[in-house]
Amino acid sequence: MSLIVQKYGGTSVGTTERISAVADKVMRYRERGDDVVVVVSAMSGETDRLLGLANAIGSVPVPRELDVLLATGEQVTIALLSMALQQRGCAARSYTGAQVHIRTDSAHNKARIRAIDDARVHADLTEGRVVVVAGFQGVDEDGNITTLGRGGSDTTAVALAAALKADECQIFTDVDGVYTTDPRVVPQARRLDRITFEEMLEMASLGSKVLQIRAVEFAGKYNVPLRVLSTFEEGNGTLISYEEPDVEQALISGIAFNRDEAKLTVVGVPDQPGVAHRVLGPVADANVEVDMIIQNVAPDGATTDLTFTVHRNDYSKVLSILKQVARETGAQDVTGDDKIVKVSVVGVGMRSHAGIASTMFETLAKEGVNIRMISTSEIKISVVVDERYLELAVRALHEAFNLEQPALI
Amino acid sequence: MSLIVQKYGGTSVGTTERISAVADKVMRYRERGDDVVVVVSAMSGETDRLLGLANAIGSVPVPRELDVLLATGEQVTIALLSMALQQRGCAARSYTGAQVHIRTDSAHNKARIRAIDDARVHADLTEGRVVVVAGFQGVDEDGNITTLGRGGSDTTAVALAAALKADECQIFTDVDGVYTTDPRVVPQARRLDRITFEEMLEMASLGSKVLQIRAVEFAGKYNVPLRVLSTFEEGNGTLISYEEPDVEQALISGIAFNRDEAKLTVVGVPDQPGVAHRVLGPVADANVEVDMIIQNVAPDGATTDLTFTVHRNDYSKVLSILKQVARETGAQDVTGDDKIVKVSVVGVGMRSHAGIASTMFETLAKEGVNIRMISTSEIKISVVVDERYLELAVRALHEAFNLEQPALI
Repeated sequence: MSLIVQKYGGTSVGTTERISAVADKVMRYRERGDDVVVVVSAMSGETDRLLGLANAIGSVPVPRELDVLLATGEQVTIALLSMALQQRGCAARSYTGAQVHIRTDSAHNKARIRAIDDARVHADLTEGRVVVVAGFQGVDEDGNITTLGRGGSDTTAVALAAALKADECQIFTDVDGVYTTDPRVVPQARRLDRITFEEMLEMASLGSKVLQIRAVEFAGKYNVPLRVLSTFEEGNGTLISYEEPDVEQALISGIAFNRDEAKLTVVGVPDQPGVAHRVLGPVADANVEVDMIIQNVAPDGATTDLTFTVHRNDYSKVLSILKQVARETGAQDVTGDDKIVKVSVVGVGMRSHAGIASTMFETLAKEGVNIRMISTSEIKISVVVDERYLELAVRALHEAFNLEQPALI
Repeated sequence: MSLIVQKYGGTSVGTTERISAVADKVMRYRERGDDVVVVVSAMSGETDRLLGLANAIGSVPVPRELDVLLATGEQVTIALLSMALQQRGCAARSYTGAQVHIRTDSAHNKARIRAIDDARVHADLTEGRVVVVAGFQGVDEDGNITTLGRGGSDTTAVALAAALKADECQIFTDVDGVYTTDPRVVPQARRLDRITFEEMLEMASLGSKVLQIRAVEFAGKYNVPLRVLSTFEEGNGTLISYEEPDVEQALISGIAFNRDEAKLTVVGVPDQPGVAHRVLGPVADANVEVDMIIQNVAPDGATTDLTFTVHRNDYSKVLSILKQVARETGAQDVTGDDKIVKVSVVGVGMRSHAGIASTMFETLAKEGVNIRMISTSEIKISVVVDERYLELAVRALHEAFNLEQPALI
């Protein structure tokens, strides 16, 4: 008998029929003898409907009141799911974020969970009830309703699982797990049985939109085993935990990529202490997130080139900031390219194995893919390439690292 | 400067445009220097939409969860109205029933208010904010969400006004006040400037659907002056209070009527002690509410006729109950008529004036309206007549008591 926290997103509870199907699924875990806490999102479309009402009232909704408004979305779902469970003879009780004491700070629309009082949930579980909790929402010290921001239901589920010391936190979604890469690009992409938190973070931040990054961080911090699985199909999904797969077999877990990149270079900046700050400070001040950064000093040592990547949407804004910076610092030129992408190989196996980088570079060279930037971390190697090479690069790397073959563990 | 509690019903907040118009109206009271607490219902149609979802899940929604579901309706409105007020530069804050500590018993779907903690509302008012409270809902001792049943927002408003010792509780609705009778029957019907709580209770229970009876009772109990006015038109509406109009001028406040009546008679019951109970007990056991009751003893003193009225929907059910009762008690016959209506004249003036009854009976006689039953209370005389005489009777009485003329106070 395990204690399981399950989270069902908006698509999984998008209609009353689907909510009934979720109730059937929860029942199967109950019948197996598990204690179940269910976290649900608003029915798909509901949040947009509510935002539409707010926009009709005024252009800039007041953050505190926007939270009061949006929190009704999940409240509708918890009531309906609890009804569906009880309809099936399964004792159940619903709770809003406030009722189950999900305490957050007061940062409306993007609050962070501070503490969860698990007494009430434990009491219900002891009495044999399924507990249905509204995701995405909490309550601050003064009793104001807060929300965690879009997708925050994953975070609610993980935080509840951590507070309750659950055996597993299961995130039900419309995909059946985490894949070695995007199956739309590589049809041979394979669902991973397991992956580590660190790898998942690299995969997620690079564009796999299966899970909220914050939820993965949270799960890693509190060592909550996290499982991603499909609401609509049977299967074991992908388990995300600290346990590493057999290093002999699985060097690389997946190939991640990000299409929406742009790259900018400030050419020939006089190389003085603080030059990176003088160039990147104004970019940060404009609230633009900078990803990869590379600095090359010219052979004469007098000037330096500074290259970095940003989200493609920020490209023109950053370009004009840099032109101003170039004038102020006496740089020779500013160049840029908004037709680039980032491709990364991710895997904890590379910690203990040399040669991953050379295999990667060799594979890309063989396909004639020119590498424009390189960046490495302990469990990831990323390259920037022209966007026309994206599919080619991903497919070649997926094959080179044998990802279509299941690990032999 | 007064403290005013205002309540806006579902039609008044039925669209975002109407919510904006309510914000404008609230602003005018603020600009006059009043402190304002606003109680709102769910947007019209919203409660039915939510009930539709619940019905799609299962035929008998669980009462606790139905309250969780329905309470979202008002929560949406409080958020939108607070946004609209702040959009206009008016400080405002929204509260759910739970947040403002509207404590109720645990009778889900029909809870009764036990206490209101007014500290938070007073604090906001002191800081110059308009306080926007969700009507219809509260919270029980264990933190469960409860609802007061349909129309309960009036009760919320009156209870808040009582707790806050407000100067007036204003119920904004789609009619501009309480009328001497239904203007659809008597076009000369006149809006009353004021009426007493007792009269309002008689008018309301007899079919004027302007206000929830419980709200009027509550207002009377705590002596909260209640004003009914239109959301959509300017005007002072009708003030309901303990103050009686000048007795010289206003004998009668209005003519109430109820179309949905039926009348039944058990003929020739052996007249023994307890006969009324033996006849009416089984009717009460069937959860049928009995209104007027008349008993006539036959000239020989051996048998009695017992006549009473019920709602027309209950007619056939009660008829079959009475046939059984007749067999058991040895009564001669059971007769009935489901084509009757009740017409009443209501007015505190009749306490100090004789002759109201005779004017009423004379008026009806002159018009050829046959009276089938009579019942009187301290401030009301009701008669039962054939339904085809309803309009004729109401119009004749309205004219006979000079109700189209404004009181000369």
